[in-house]
Amino acid sequence: MSTKVNRVAHEFDKTRFEALLNRRFFYAPAFEIYGGVAGLYDYGPPGSSLQANIIAEWRRHFIIEEHMLELDTTIMTPAPVFEASGHVARFADWMVKDSKTGDVLRADHLVKNVLEARLAGDREARGLAAQPQQDDKKKKKKAAKTVAIQLSDNVVKEYEVILAQLDNYSGPQLGELCRNHKITNPDTDNEVTEPQEFNLMFTSSIGPTGQHPGYLRPETAQGHFVNFSRLLEFNNGRIPFASAQIGRSFRNEISPRAGLLRVREFTMAEIEHFVDPQDKRHPKFTEVRHTVLSLLDRHVQEGGSSAPVKMSVGDAVDRGIIANETLGYFVARIYQFLIKIGVNPDRLRFRQHMGNEMAHYATDCWDAEIQNSYGWTECVGCADRAAYDLSVHSARTGHSLVVRQALKEPIVTEKLVPEFNKKVLGKTFKSDSASIQKAVEAMEESELLRLQGELNHGSSTIKTEEGNEFQLTPELLSIERKTFKQSIREFTPNVIEPSFGLGRILYMLLEHTYWCREQDVERGVLSLPPVVAPTKVLIVPLSAREEFDPLVQEVSTKLRKAGVFSRVDDSNTSIGKRYARNDELGTPFGVTLDFASIQNRTMTLRERDTMDQRIGSIDEVIAVLTELVDGTIDWEEACRRLPVYDGVQAIE
Amino acid sequence: MSTKVNRVAHEFDKTRFEALLNRRFFYAPAFEIYGGVAGLYDYGPPGSSLQANIIAEWRRHFIIEEHMLELDTTIMTPAPVFEASGHVARFADWMVKDSKTGDVLRADHLVKNVLEARLAGDREARGLAAQPQQDDKKKKKKAAKTVAIQLSDNVVKEYEVILAQLDNYSGPQLGELCRNHKITNPDTDNEVTEPQEFNLMFTSSIGPTGQHPGYLRPETAQGHFVNFSRLLEFNNGRIPFASAQIGRSFRNEISPRAGLLRVREFTMAEIEHFVDPQDKRHPKFTEVRHTVLSLLDRHVQEGGSSAPVKMSVGDAVDRGIIANETLGYFVARIYQFLIKIGVNPDRLRFRQHMGNEMAHYATDCWDAEIQNSYGWTECVGCADRAAYDLSVHSARTGHSLVVRQALKEPIVTEKLVPEFNKKVLGKTFKSDSASIQKAVEAMEESELLRLQGELNHGSSTIKTEEGNEFQLTPELLSIERKTFKQSIREFTPNVIEPSFGLGRILYMLLEHTYWCREQDVERGVLSLPPVVAPTKVLIVPLSAREEFDPLVQEVSTKLRKAGVFSRVDDSNTSIGKRYARNDELGTPFGVTLDFASIQNRTMTLRERDTMDQRIGSIDEVIAVLTELVDGTIDWEEACRRLPVYDGVQAIE
Repeated sequence: MSTKVNRVAHEFDKTRFEALLNRRFFYAPAFEIYGGVAGLYDYGPPGSSLQANIIAEWRRHFIIEEHMLELDTTIMTPAPVFEASGHVARFADWMVKDSKTGDVLRADHLVKNVLEARLAGDREARGLAAQPQQDDKKKKKKAAKTVAIQLSDNVVKEYEVILAQLDNYSGPQLGELCRNHKITNPDTDNEVTEPQEFNLMFTSSIGPTGQHPGYLRPETAQGHFVNFSRLLEFNNGRIPFASAQIGRSFRNEISPRAGLLRVREFTMAEIEHFVDPQDKRHPKFTEVRHTVLSLLDRHVQEGGSSAPVKMSVGDAVDRGIIANETLGYFVARIYQFLIKIGVNPDRLRFRQHMGNEMAHYATDCWDAEIQNSYGWTECVGCADRAAYDLSVHSARTGHSLVVRQALKEPIVTEKLVPEFNKKVLGKTFKSDSASIQKAVEAMEESELLRLQGELNHGSSTIKTEEGNEFQLTPELLSIERKTFKQSIREFTPNVIEPSFGLGRILYMLLEHTYWCREQDVERGVLSLPPVVAPTKVLIVPLSAREEFDPLVQEVSTKLRKAGVFSRVDDSNTSIGKRYARNDELGTPFGVTLDFASIQNRTMTLRERDTMDQRIGSIDEVIAVLTELVDGTIDWEEACRRLPVYDGVQAIE
Repeated sequence: MSTKVNRVAHEFDKTRFEALLNRRFFYAPAFEIYGGVAGLYDYGPPGSSLQANIIAEWRRHFIIEEHMLELDTTIMTPAPVFEASGHVARFADWMVKDSKTGDVLRADHLVKNVLEARLAGDREARGLAAQPQQDDKKKKKKAAKTVAIQLSDNVVKEYEVILAQLDNYSGPQLGELCRNHKITNPDTDNEVTEPQEFNLMFTSSIGPTGQHPGYLRPETAQGHFVNFSRLLEFNNGRIPFASAQIGRSFRNEISPRAGLLRVREFTMAEIEHFVDPQDKRHPKFTEVRHTVLSLLDRHVQEGGSSAPVKMSVGDAVDRGIIANETLGYFVARIYQFLIKIGVNPDRLRFRQHMGNEMAHYATDCWDAEIQNSYGWTECVGCADRAAYDLSVHSARTGHSLVVRQALKEPIVTEKLVPEFNKKVLGKTFKSDSASIQKAVEAMEESELLRLQGELNHGSSTIKTEEGNEFQLTPELLSIERKTFKQSIREFTPNVIEPSFGLGRILYMLLEHTYWCREQDVERGVLSLPPVVAPTKVLIVPLSAREEFDPLVQEVSTKLRKAGVFSRVDDSNTSIGKRYARNDELGTPFGVTLDFASIQNRTMTLRERDTMDQRIGSIDEVIAVLTELVDGTIDWEEACRRLPVYDGVQAIE
C-alpha cells in the first residue's frame, strides 16, 4: 500500500509468527481445553473478521461483478447423490498403517516426508545446506528425521523426479515406492502396510430409523448441480450463467497436520459456470488477455521439473496450454482477486494437474498455488468438469438436465426413410415380420440407397440379425427421401469450476503480510490491506478521561456513516503500546485525540507500516481516511494532502 | 414503509403464497430431483440474498452496536464436549411408533394434531366454525382428519388445558395422554407404542480408525463456552462481554414437516453474554425500559391460558416477571430487531418457558414467538443459562473457567482457627489423631468458640464422626482468632443467551409481507423493507436497445457507489410485467429509463407497494433513492421532493 515501508529482511520467524496468531486469537485448535482434535480449528474475533472481509470482497469481485446466482444448499446429503457423483467410489486417499503400532499415515505424505528428509540429509552431507534453523528443526521433528548421509547423484535425481510427480502415483505404485526405497514410518522405523483406500467423506444417518445413510458434503458443488433446472429457469433459460456458494465442507483427512492447510472442516467459496460445450469463449476475455501469470503446465512436471513459465493468459489459451477462454478468464480473475486481498504475486503460481492426479470429473484443472513456509500449497482449483456432473445426476434420477435453445435457423436434413406395408408384411412373413423391420431400420444411408435401387428393379434379399434371409418386394416396402426440420437444440452444458479454500487463503495472507520492525523483533506487524483488515481505524484518545468522550463519539459516528469500521482503544497504557497492539491485528490506520483536538479540532493520523504521522482537522482526516480505506488514494497521496505531524517522537 | 399502501384484506392464500416462493426459487426442497429429504431445504438466489441481508442487519444491530466478539467455531464436535454439556443424555424428543406399520411420530405433535382436530370437529358440529378453506383442507390432510363430532363441554375444557401446557409434559405423561384419550396414528388409526426418547444429534466418527465418535452441533453455543478463557483474555480480563456467532447447526428431527419451520439443518445466530452473577443489571437498560411487549408468562400458561399481557419491559423486570435487567434488555433488543426487518409487531409475543419445558441448562427462558399460518412459532430463544455450561466444562476438563477480579477494597475477615500440637497429639491418641483433627476442623464458629472457652478452663470432650469421645487439653490444641485478607474475587460468570433461528425468521418475514393486489390476485407482492430486500432498485430501460446502455451503466454505477444494490431488467417484455415480476421478489423501488431520459436526463421512480410513480433528474432520483434505502426518509418525504409522474397509466 505504501511505497515507504521500512520492512526488515529478517528471515520469516515461524515461532514468533505462530505465537502472535495464537496470542491475538486469530485462530486456535478447536476444543483446546478437551485436548483438541486434529484438523479442527476455531477462529477468534480477528480471524472471524478477516474471514468475513475476504468473503465480502469475494462476493463483490465474483458474484456482484459477474451477476452470479447465489445459492445456499445443505451440507447433509443423502447417499444416492454421492453415489451418482462418483464420490462414494472414488473420493479417497491412500493410507498405510505402521505394521506394529497400527498408526495410520497418508501414503503420499509419508513418501514425500521421507524422501525430502533424505535429500536434505544429502545436502547437509555435501555441505550445501546451512544447519536447519530452530523452527525448521521443530517442523522436521514432526515429519521425518534429517540425517546427514550423502546419496549417489543418481539417487538424488531419482528422488527429485519422484517428488515432482508425486501426485501422479496410484496407491499400488506408492506401495511399490515404499518397498523399493525402504520407506518406513519415521516415528518408529517400522515397515508400513500396503496402501489401502480410505474414503474422505464423513458419514452419518438421517432420520430416527437409521435407514437413510448420509454424507457431509466434501465440496459445495453437488448442491449447484442438483438445482440446475431451477437455476436455469431463474436465468430465463439462457446460458452461460454461473451459480456461486460460500459454505462449510468436510473431509475426514487421514492424519491432518500443517495447521489451517489441512483441516477436516473448512469454508469454501465455489462457482459453477455453465457454458455451451461448443462455445467456451468468454465475452470479457479481452479484459484479462494481457494478465501475466506463472504457469506450471502438465508437460513440464511430467518431465520432472517444477519451474513455472511466465506467460500472458492470452498466449496460454492461444497455444492450447490452458484449454479454453472461459477457463483462462477465471484463472486470470482468481489471480486478480488474490493479489487484491494481499497475496504476494511473486509467491503465486498456477499449476496444471497431471493425468492421474485429476479428479474423476475433470478434463483440465489448474491450481492456484501459493508459496508459504510449508512449501507451495493449492489454495484455489479451477477445473473444467465438462458435462460429467449433470450427466451422471440426470442418468441416475431420470430428470433431464439440459439446455434447450431455439435455433435461429432451423437445421434442415434429408434422410431416406423406409415405410412398410405392415398388413401385407404380416400376412407374408408372420412372426418374422418384426426382425425384418428391425434389420431394415438398422441400415445406414448407403445400404438403404442400395436397397431402394434393388426394389426399383423388382426385389431385394435381406438378412436378419438371426441370419435368416428374406426376399422383399415394392409391395411390402417403399423407401422415400424425406426432409426433417430441427428448430430446437438440446444439450448438456459444460461446467467450469473455480473453487476456493478460504482458510488456506487466510493463512497465506497472514504469512505474506507478517514482518517485524528492525528496532523490535518481538513487535510483529501484519500489513493487511485495508480491504480485508479486521479493523480499519483505531481511535486512540490520550486517556479514558471523560473530556475526550464527545470527540471519540463524534469521530466514531462520522467514520461509521462513511462506512469505515473503527474501534476505540482507551485502555490505560501508552499510545505507542496501543498502536503496537493494533499493528499485530493488522489495523492499517490510527487516529489520536489529545488536548490539541479539544482546543483546535485537529487529529493526527498514523499509518501502520511506515509509522508516519500526519495532522489535519478532524473532518479533513476523516475524508482522507475514507478514501484510503476505499482504496481510491494511497498513503503517498494522503501525505500530499495532510502535513507531517512533528510531535511524532513524543507520542510514538 | 409507506402510509398509502392500498393492500387488500384478502385472506392469506397459502397455496398462492407457496407457489410464489417455489416459482421464484426463494427456497426449495433439497435434492428435489432425488425425491427430496424431509427437513432439508436449499435457498435459491432471492432466498440467499434475503438471508444474507438479515444476517448483515443482525451483525449491525447486535455485534457492531454492542461491540461483541465474533467467533467462527467448528460444527463437528468430539463426543466428550456434548457428554459434559448434557446433550448426549438429554437433548432428545419423545417418539412413538405406529404399532403395526412402524411409522415414527413425534409424541407431542401427535397429541397436538389429534386434539386440535377433535376441537375443530366440535366447533364444526356446534356450527361455530366456517367450513375449512381449500388450503386448510390440504393442511389437515397432512395432520389429523377433522370429523364434525360434538364433544361435551368438560372434554373441550380438558383438551384446551392440555394444549395450553403441552410443552410441559414428560414422555410417560404423553403416553398416558394417548391411552386415556385414545389417541392413535391419524394416518392408519392404529395404536401407538409407549413414547421412547430419541437423541436429536446427528452422529459421525472422526478420523480413519473410527475410534473417535463425534456429533454435529445442535447449537453453536458450546463453541463459545470452550473458548471462554481466550475470549476473556481478548477482552483484557473484563466482564461483562458478549461473544456472537452465525453458523450452521443440525438436529435430526423425528418427522419434520411444516417447511422451513422444522428442519434438520439450519443457520443460527447466537449470542453468549457473560455477566457477573451478583450483578445482572445492564448499563443500557434505561434505553429499552419503556418498550412495550406482549408477554405470556409461565403462570398464565400453567393456569391453562394463552392470552398474553401488554407490559413495558421495565415493569416486567421490576415485578420479577422477567428475571433480571440483562435478560430484559436482550428481550427488548430482539423485539427491536424483528420489527426493524419487517415482522408484524401485532403478531409477535414473548412466551416464558414452563418448569418442565426448560432446557436442562436454563434457569429462565423467554421465546420470541411469531404468529403465522402454522400457529405461533418460536423464532428466538432468550435464556439465562446461569453458570451451568462453564461449570460443567470446567469440571470435565479441569480447566478453570472463571473471572478473577481485583477487589477495590480487600475483604477482611476474622476466623477462629484451631492449631494442633501434632507431635503430642500423635503420641497421645495414635491412630485416632486423624479423626480427632477432622472433627475439630469440621466445627462451626460457635462450636469452636465453646471449645475455646472449655480449653481455657482446662479441658473439653469431643466426639468424632465414628461416635468415640476424647478429652482434649490446651497442651494438645490451641484456638486463636486470625485475620484473613482477600484481594481477588474469583467467580464463574453467568450466561444470558439470545439464540436466533434465521430460517424461521426468514419464513415469517415472507408470510407477513405477502399480499395480493385487488385487481390481480395472481400477482403477489412481498413488501419486504429495503434493509432486507434482495434487490433494492430495479433499473428498467424501455428496451434492450443499445441507445439506453450508457444511461443504464451510469445509473447502475452511481447507485453502486452510493452503496445501493441494483439489478437491470432489459428483458423483452412490457415494463409493467417487469415490475410485477420484481414485486414478487420484494424489490421496493424501480426506475425507468426512456426516451425522455435520453433527451432531458430525467428518470421515473416507482414505489412497489403503492405503485406511485415520481419523476426527477437522474441525480435527484438517485439522491432520494439512497436516502430511501438507508431509511433516513420514507416514501411520503420522497413524494414531497419529487413531483408525481403523470404518464404513469401509459407505462404501468
